[in-house]
Amino acid sequence: TGVTLDLDRRRRCGFPEVIYGEGKDARTIASIIERLLASEVRVLTTRVTRTIADELLQIFPGAHYNASARTFRVTIKPDEADRGYVPVVTAGTTDLPIAEEARETLDWMQVRTQIVADVGVAGPQRLIAKLPLLAGADAVVCAAGMEAALPSVLGGYVDCPVIAVPTSVGYGASFGGVTALLGMLNSCASNVTVVNIDAGFKAGYVAGLIATRAHDARRSQ
Amino acid sequence: TGVTLDLDRRRRCGFPEVIYGEGKDARTIASIIERLLASEVRVLTTRVTRTIADELLQIFPGAHYNASARTFRVTIKPDEADRGYVPVVTAGTTDLPIAEEARETLDWMQVRTQIVADVGVAGPQRLIAKLPLLAGADAVVCAAGMEAALPSVLGGYVDCPVIAVPTSVGYGASFGGVTALLGMLNSCASNVTVVNIDAGFKAGYVAGLIATRAHDARRSQ
Amino acid sequence: TGVTLDLDRRRRCGFPEVIYGEGKDARTIASIIERLLASEVRVLTTRVTRTIADELLQIFPGAHYNASARTFRVTIKPDEADRGYVPVVTAGTTDLPIAEEARETLDWMQVRTQIVADVGVAGPQRLIAKLPLLAGADAVVCAAGMEAALPSVLGGYVDCPVIAVPTSVGYGASFGGVTALLGMLNSCASNVTVVNIDAGFKAGYVAGLIATRAHDARRSQ
Amino acid sequence: TGVTLDLDRRRRCGFPEVIYGEGKDARTIASIIERLLASEVRVLTTRVTRTIADELLQIFPGAHYNASARTFRVTIKPDEADRGYVPVVTAGTTDLPIAEEARETLDWMQVRTQIVADVGVAGPQRLIAKLPLLAGADAVVCAAGMEAALPSVLGGYVDCPVIAVPTSVGYGASFGGVTALLGMLNSCASNVTVVNIDAGFKAGYVAGLIATRAHDARRSQ
Amino acid sequence: TGVTLDLDRRRRCGFPEVIYGEGKDARTIASIIERLLASEVRVLTTRVTRTIADELLQIFPGAHYNASARTFRVTIKPDEADRGYVPVVTAGTTDLPIAEEARETLDWMQVRTQIVADVGVAGPQRLIAKLPLLAGADAVVCAAGMEAALPSVLGGYVDCPVIAVPTSVGYGASFGGVTALLGMLNSCASNVTVVNIDAGFKAGYVAGLIATRAHDARRSQ
Amino acid sequence: TGVTLDLDRRRRCGFPEVIYGEGKDARTIASIIERLLASEVRVLTTRVTRTIADELLQIFPGAHYNASARTFRVTIKPDEADRGYVPVVTAGTTDLPIAEEARETLDWMQVRTQIVADVGVAGPQRLIAKLPLLAGADAVVCAAGMEAALPSVLGGYVDCPVIAVPTSVGYGASFGGVTALLGMLNSCASNVTVVNIDAGFKAGYVAGLIATRAHDARRSQ
Amino acid sequence: TGVTLDLDRRRRCGFPEVIYGEGKDARTIASIIERLLASEVRVLTTRVTRTIADELLQIFPGAHYNASARTFRVTIKPDEADRGYVPVVTAGTTDLPIAEEARETLDWMQVRTQIVADVGVAGPQRLIAKLPLLAGADAVVCAAGMEAALPSVLGGYVDCPVIAVPTSVGYGASFGGVTALLGMLNSCASNVTVVNIDAGFKAGYVAGLIATRAHDARRSQ
Amino acid sequence: TGVTLDLDRRRRCGFPEVIYGEGKDARTIASIIERLLASEVRVLTTRVTRTIADELLQIFPGAHYNASARTFRVTIKPDEADRGYVPVVTAGTTDLPIAEEARETLDWMQVRTQIVADVGVAGPQRLIAKLPLLAGADAVVCAAGMEAALPSVLGGYVDCPVIAVPTSVGYGASFGGVTALLGMLNSCASNVTVVNIDAGFKAGYVAGLIATRAHDARRSQ
Ligand SMILES: Nc1ncnc2c1ncn2[C@@H]1O[C@H](COP(=O)(O)O)[C@@H](O)[C@H]1O
Ligand SMILES: Nc1ncnc2c1ncn2[C@@H]1O[C@H](COP(=O)(O)O)[C@@H](O)[C@H]1O
Ligand SMILES: Nc1ncnc2c1ncn2[C@@H]1O[C@H](COP(=O)(O)O)[C@@H](O)[C@H]1O
Ligand SMILES: Nc1ncnc2c1ncn2[C@@H]1O[C@H](COP(=O)(O)O)[C@@H](O)[C@H]1O
Ligand SMILES: [Mg+2]
Ligand SMILES: [Mg+2]
Ligand SMILES: [Mg+2]
Ligand SMILES: [Mg+2]
Ligand SMILES: [Mg+2]
Ligand SMILES: [Mg+2]
Ligand SMILES: [Mg+2]
Ligand SMILES: [Mg+2]
Repeated sequence: TGVTLDLDRRRRCGFPEVIYGEGKDARTIASIIERLLASEVRVLTTRVTRTIADELLQIFPGAHYNASARTFRVTIKPDEADRGYVPVVTAGTTDLPIAEEARETLDWMQVRTQIVADVGVAGPQRLIAKLPLLAGADAVVCAAGMEAALPSVLGGYVDCPVIAVPTSVGYGASFGGVTALLGMLNSCASNVTVVNIDAGFKAGYVAGLIATRAHDARRSQ
Repeated sequence: TGVTLDLDRRRRCGFPEVIYGEGKDARTIASIIERLLASEVRVLTTRVTRTIADELLQIFPGAHYNASARTFRVTIKPDEADRGYVPVVTAGTTDLPIAEEARETLDWMQVRTQIVADVGVAGPQRLIAKLPLLAGADAVVCAAGMEAALPSVLGGYVDCPVIAVPTSVGYGASFGGVTALLGMLNSCASNVTVVNIDAGFKAGYVAGLIATRAHDARRSQ
Repeated sequence: TGVTLDLDRRRRCGFPEVIYGEGKDARTIASIIERLLASEVRVLTTRVTRTIADELLQIFPGAHYNASARTFRVTIKPDEADRGYVPVVTAGTTDLPIAEEARETLDWMQVRTQIVADVGVAGPQRLIAKLPLLAGADAVVCAAGMEAALPSVLGGYVDCPVIAVPTSVGYGASFGGVTALLGMLNSCASNVTVVNIDAGFKAGYVAGLIATRAHDARRSQ
Repeated sequence: TGVTLDLDRRRRCGFPEVIYGEGKDARTIASIIERLLASEVRVLTTRVTRTIADELLQIFPGAHYNASARTFRVTIKPDEADRGYVPVVTAGTTDLPIAEEARETLDWMQVRTQIVADVGVAGPQRLIAKLPLLAGADAVVCAAGMEAALPSVLGGYVDCPVIAVPTSVGYGASFGGVTALLGMLNSCASNVTVVNIDAGFKAGYVAGLIATRAHDARRSQ
Repeated sequence: TGVTLDLDRRRRCGFPEVIYGEGKDARTIASIIERLLASEVRVLTTRVTRTIADELLQIFPGAHYNASARTFRVTIKPDEADRGYVPVVTAGTTDLPIAEEARETLDWMQVRTQIVADVGVAGPQRLIAKLPLLAGADAVVCAAGMEAALPSVLGGYVDCPVIAVPTSVGYGASFGGVTALLGMLNSCASNVTVVNIDAGFKAGYVAGLIATRAHDARRSQ
Repeated sequence: TGVTLDLDRRRRCGFPEVIYGEGKDARTIASIIERLLASEVRVLTTRVTRTIADELLQIFPGAHYNASARTFRVTIKPDEADRGYVPVVTAGTTDLPIAEEARETLDWMQVRTQIVADVGVAGPQRLIAKLPLLAGADAVVCAAGMEAALPSVLGGYVDCPVIAVPTSVGYGASFGGVTALLGMLNSCASNVTVVNIDAGFKAGYVAGLIATRAHDARRSQ
Repeated sequence: TGVTLDLDRRRRCGFPEVIYGEGKDARTIASIIERLLASEVRVLTTRVTRTIADELLQIFPGAHYNASARTFRVTIKPDEADRGYVPVVTAGTTDLPIAEEARETLDWMQVRTQIVADVGVAGPQRLIAKLPLLAGADAVVCAAGMEAALPSVLGGYVDCPVIAVPTSVGYGASFGGVTALLGMLNSCASNVTVVNIDAGFKAGYVAGLIATRAHDARRSQ
Repeated sequence: TGVTLDLDRRRRCGFPEVIYGEGKDARTIASIIERLLASEVRVLTTRVTRTIADELLQIFPGAHYNASARTFRVTIKPDEADRGYVPVVTAGTTDLPIAEEARETLDWMQVRTQIVADVGVAGPQRLIAKLPLLAGADAVVCAAGMEAALPSVLGGYVDCPVIAVPTSVGYGASFGGVTALLGMLNSCASNVTVVNIDAGFKAGYVAGLIATRAHDARRSQ
């Protein structure tokens, strides 16, 4: 069927393979989900359209679809979100879908998270007012489009890594997120690292990896 | 000699033609300066190398060469810098040459100015500490390289236009100022407008035009 | 709801936050409008589609929707357009929607304005015939697509800043406005400054800022 | 020796092969010149550095080297420049080397020519004053860098083809002539066609082809 | 109505203004056509969709719409196609719409023309077989997409200018015609000059200008 | 009809002309197929939509349409796939349509082939497990999107040429296959060569050419 | 002097400001170092040329200059490299200078580190042989140029974040590291995050931040 | 020393590792050569400057340095160039260094080869005259810069793969070989495949792989 699963991934990398839903039909996704469930892992599928999700929900009625994030999750064990803490900060309201994808990924990794939305730099007092929400973070995900100045400013206020995810929000010379991507790569804040445009999953995953490992270190005392 | 001067420029545009020194030899520049002086205007030449400047200083001993800005000025009347106020703000230390070009242009336009250097956003308290220096500005010039987040933050603190000038400072994906340029064009602050990369002259000129006109309005009471 | 308003903006920057309508549903926009009206400011929303506008007009029957500009305005006080003068010049007929966005912004700022359309450079006598309409301008907005030669020519005729806005008009190597943007950034006229592609709002805003400040200076006599 | 001459070119295309000097040493160029002279054609070599030219002048003492154009010509018959008329117009002083390359090419083709320099659009009266020099042109070559607005304006004044050649003059977002190239390709004037950046030779050649053919038509009466 | 006609164009440039149909509604186009007809010129409109054309044909029943070229012509005098000769050559079948736009433009200019289609270089005998059709040409229009090798080969067989028009035909790294455009600009044939991507009108216009002027020269004997 | 067939292609190049279906209607394609069949060659058409295919199947009922590959084949002789061996390897499931186009091309050339799907490098054991399927290959086609690391890894395991075809699979900074293309061009494996983005046909064709020639060499013993 | 130090950085971000040496003269750097030493922090300067370093070593004889990394370090306390573990892996020999910059940064952060060089993917057994050196890593820095396939392969073998740093190594379409950057951003491995081209400092800093925090968590038991 | 040799390469891939000389000093190269010689393979080093080569020739007096190709070869067995035939064709004289690199690689692989230089398409009779030299080729390497039309024309004349290598020859919009690269990728000839800009080594290697395998097939009869 054109699919070769990597069922050994969790052993090598700590978390199982995540299904990239783009361009896959419901039948293909369902069969992958079943094989993953059979190996007893929590299942996350990204880039799932509403139509595909409706078909999948017929097959997996207990699953969770997030229409904004376009993620589809099937989990065999209840969620316990206590494996570290990663806030997800956005510059504008329109960055929310990407932030949601990051949040769903963190939920799936059982990392505590919350979204701090619309604190872009042109109203600087907004971020300062919300800094207490960032206390104790193991890493911060920061989603921004347009000129993406937020990660640089944010990076100057925190002592943990900032995983910056450029969003395709904007018009004209924002070039579908390229300007935001370039801005983030050139951030003058030393603690900012970058993932692909609109890659909410990857930002969440890397941040979650940092958090779960720090959490394990704390617990292993 | 390949030069066609626009001696009518001051009448139409308020200020005389400025000499673009790039690629012109000392003899050509000197002859243009002389023709401009003959029509009794203050003379500004930009992009003048140290070598060319030394030759010109032989001919115009009273002239002023700014090696960092690479500008050469010959003025028939003393400078009275009271035609409005335009601070020039920079994100980093390395943006100074561009800031100097803007400052020389403002001096030539007889606008009051000062440089506020190295207040980039990764250390946010630095800009806040210097905000008093921006009080009463008719316009602000803001020079920044790398991700150029500063104009967006600055724009959120002032009620006048911010003329943003991207600098070619940075490495890797800064692409000689292109990243800074794109960031500034996509600024989420409404009062930010942009000139070409390293165009300290143009940033200074537009800001100076706003200042001198506001000054004239104030005086015409 | 993913929205963090910057209600302090008018105090710091002279004008309140403008709502960026792109990607927001009618309910979100309506709730923001209500909160802004509650703080007694004039409300401008940009990038509003006809469908969203129809929903909003149910809620705000006295509001003004400009379908060409895609702007939606709700103003508590009557418009008095006397805070300076900013003509909006276009190179072609197809640049009109962007010019309209600039004009609506200037109306909202209570600046006097008018559109001077279709005076592109290939018929040079057209601009010359309309130069009287530019007399007394505090700033000029100039919208052009394709090769965008107009701001350079216009800049040579006026003594105030020209805020150039590249439009995405054109085909082939016009690259959705990139060619116009680059041309404007490289303008040989010293008084030309640039905003993002299709950024009629920003061009109008910066020009309006110059005009209102000059107007206040004139009045403060 | 790695060279395969196309000695049949004059028969097929009207003019013999021109030697592209870039990257060729003096010995290689000299041997090509000799073979071309042997077939009794006028010889033009482009992109010849001063050093190479000095070596060549030892071998061909009667030849003509133009250091600004970087062209080297050896002609067996005297020049009679009467095969039509092509003026070469430049926007700025720094476009002169490219204009010179075009002029040398036209000389080699025996077309009457002259350079009209530094009539860029920011001082519009300069071009108008020189329009009489364009009367009777079979084609016009127009060299411009930066935003390259000149061909569009020029195109609106003449009734013959304008061969626009973008120059690599400028800085920042002029990208070594790319901005000028794009501007010219998108010219709103219908009679503007374009050659490669800094391709003075090609602009001159195409214009010369138009002129010599029109001249032959006129004479064949 | 946002339209400023250039009714003086024919006097200055030899041919009247052509209407750029893109983005204009039928009413606007019809009113421009009427004003142009009133000044007794032949009318050409480009980029007209089938829908707009149907509306226009109600108003101008004798007009001619070419659906492939998307051109709409209204001519007061009968067509006499004898003002010189310009063949239009294409590399592939899919370049035909652009070739048609060039042909319609040449018809409107009363230049004799014909299309020589699908003679791309991978089957070299095809072009050679059709060379007789190029005999006597005043200029050749050459439309090609993908790697656009045809103008270079064609240029080596003819002694008149080749006006190359890149088409947006191709996929992958053809980038909507950019590869073809760059290839043509870098053509090793000296007689190749270039217009914008898909600019069949411009290619036809410049070629037609060369042809009509040569024709007039021949006739003026 | 705008079509000039190259019926001599098989003699010169070993295989007849393949029909590029993009932008051609069913009638045009059918008439070309008929002329090709008349010269007794196996017919392959690429880039055929489902709608066009349905029309063609009415005319050529025995033909074979592959909806994923978008290829349409009409063969006069039965397929004997024994002219060498070319496996087609893909990095992900979504690369399958391009792999299918390559496979159809190889079928048409009568080369033995099979698809080895979804063995991307993040699960390295997958490729190693499938290496036996590559034994005896004359060449390997490798389709990959996103960062396209697979050809480099694959190249290190085989002793025959790897024809890499970048796919437009991915999002954000994958730029419709440009990132994959660039990665493949810069492959550190010496045996990797590259075709255009999504050019499954070309990858299959070049690989098939290598295989059939090796096969002929083997048989010619 | 154009420098505004951020002496509060260590309190907010965990580590003091690092001096960006590019474009600063020895005197400026020395004075910053002195002010930083006065506030009792370990000092790291990046992008220091050999010439500048020699001047600085006169002033700070006990300092450490790494000519390959171009870093200059002055530390008041002895180095104890026990704050976690970060291996630095390179694809080729030529990536070493960037790896060295990362290593120096990790030394300065007192993180244990070692370089694993030249294990690019075209010889896959090389990386596998060195996997034991990655055991126990808190994060891995991976430097690669050309097609930069290594981070994707590496990411599939480890369970911690991979901080990928593209290097400007390569030629042709590697575009000074842009191809490597794009490849890394599109990595199919979920645990790969990216910094700017040649940004060895930043890669080391983010990895070091992860390591020191994990180390502190382990110790805080 | 930062080098991890892949001594198993010949077993897996048919030919041993080639040393990439760029950025390596003579000592490093010499030590790699010695280790390779110890494993009894023929040694090829690419991108070796004259200076480095002189040092190496002290150590390996019997070695062969090609200054144009910048290759350095040390072979333990005499060259027998009979493993198939690969002609190397160039469009212009300036493409020779890249052609030489391909030729040296083929020599090292013991493949018979010869250079057919300067047969670019603007003089089409030149290639036709040399077609006999291509008879019996197993593959053809084709090096071309500027618009790179040659591979498409060449591809139409031969029945074997054409390995096209774009060269960085040209000026203006040739962008250091990018235009040639794009043209080749979009070649309308089905048998053209492409390697990186200036990658003479890779073009020679892939062509040599095809030739040696065909040769082995012929011999294994
Ligand atoms: N640094 C600069 N950047 C952009 N434009 C400049 C600069 N300096 C002078 N100019 C403009 O260049 C024009 C003179 O150019 P030129 O005729 O080449 O000397 C004047 O109209 C100035 O407004
Ligand atoms: N400056 C130039 N720009 C573009 N093409 C040129 C130039 N000079 C000569 N040529 C062309 O280059 C070809 C000769 O190239 P080559 O064989 O390398 O000497 C001739 O066909 C000329 O038409
Ligand atoms: N190699 C480097 N790459 C990126 N950022 C750096 C580098 N070295 C130092 N920095 C940052 O640059 C800032 C200092 O810049 P400056 O004020 O110009 O000295 C510090 O905040 C550092 O975090
Ligand atoms: N000119 C070249 N272009 C591309 N790859 C090359 C070249 N020369 C050698 N190589 C490859 O580079 C690898 C060696 O790189 P390195 O480990 O940096 O010496 C070998 O596997 C060769 O296949
Ligand atoms: Mg907001
Ligand atoms: Mg600083
Ligand atoms: Mg008009
Ligand atoms: Mg001038
Ligand atoms: Mg065809
Ligand atoms: Mg998979
Ligand atoms: Mg190596
Ligand atoms: Mg030649």
